[in-house]
Amino acid sequence: MTGKSADIEEGTVFTPKFDANGLITAVVTDARSGGLLMVAHMNNEALEKTVASGEAWYYSRSRKALWKKGETSGHVQRVVELRVDCDQDSVWLKVEQHGAGACHTGRRSCFYRVVPLGKGGTVTLELRDEKTFDPGKVYGKPD
Amino acid sequence: MTGKSADIEEGTVFTPKFDANGLITAVVTDARSGGLLMVAHMNNEALEKTVASGEAWYYSRSRKALWKKGETSGHVQRVVELRVDCDQDSVWLKVEQHGAGACHTGRRSCFYRVVPLGKGGTVTLELRDEKTFDPGKVYGKPD
Repeated sequence: MTGKSADIEEGTVFTPKFDANGLITAVVTDARSGGLLMVAHMNNEALEKTVASGEAWYYSRSRKALWKKGETSGHVQRVVELRVDCDQDSVWLKVEQHGAGACHTGRRSCFYRVVPLGKGGTVTLELRDEKTFDPGKVYGKPD
Repeated sequence: MTGKSADIEEGTVFTPKFDANGLITAVVTDARSGGLLMVAHMNNEALEKTVASGEAWYYSRSRKALWKKGETSGHVQRVVELRVDCDQDSVWLKVEQHGAGACHTGRRSCFYRVVPLGKGGTVTLELRDEKTFDPGKVYGKPD
């Protein structure tokens, strides 16, 4: 292990490593149930705003814009705990999810489909979680 | 929502979306405790091998190589359930983690440090989880 990676892995200075697009991966779990809600991305500004405010901010790759979770839907996320991984290129947010869910499709979690294991060829997903809100009503437009 | 994104989000055909580098994000949680163990990446081959075998395979960006988790350490991961998210660019593996941990630094989880909230300037990380194994012994070389 080089001196530099020792600092990153064993040190106590927060030195987030952004990728070529200036983004870091954010894994978001429900602080109460422990379940995975969503995976998103943060640029430096989104990460700084999250750390400073204790509310989740992300960067939308499709809209190329900073984005406060819940700014349209009201489904804000209060960060209960924030962690960083060994090489400091991913963060983990344990959040208190306000409103009916985290996913823009209307589910509580974005991970509502199971990929069956041990199958070859075309894989058919199995739907597990039903919608908990109407995204058309919450976002005010077809989504 | 366009026809194409409706298919991806509401359909049952598994159509993983790899990024410009041919990779998809894999979030790995402990099937028993629910805790986040690691975040890794998969190329198409790693994902296919994982689905077919029920054991976790990844792609190492630093080594530019396909990699079976535990091939050196013995800390293999049996996949209990695999899920995909709304836009099919992230997968969630709930695994049975064999051995003392998932992190190459010697911890059970890669997320062993907390980022304190509400602080400005230089952020000092708080170490939460101790090492559960000696990475030098497990990997057979300074790591």
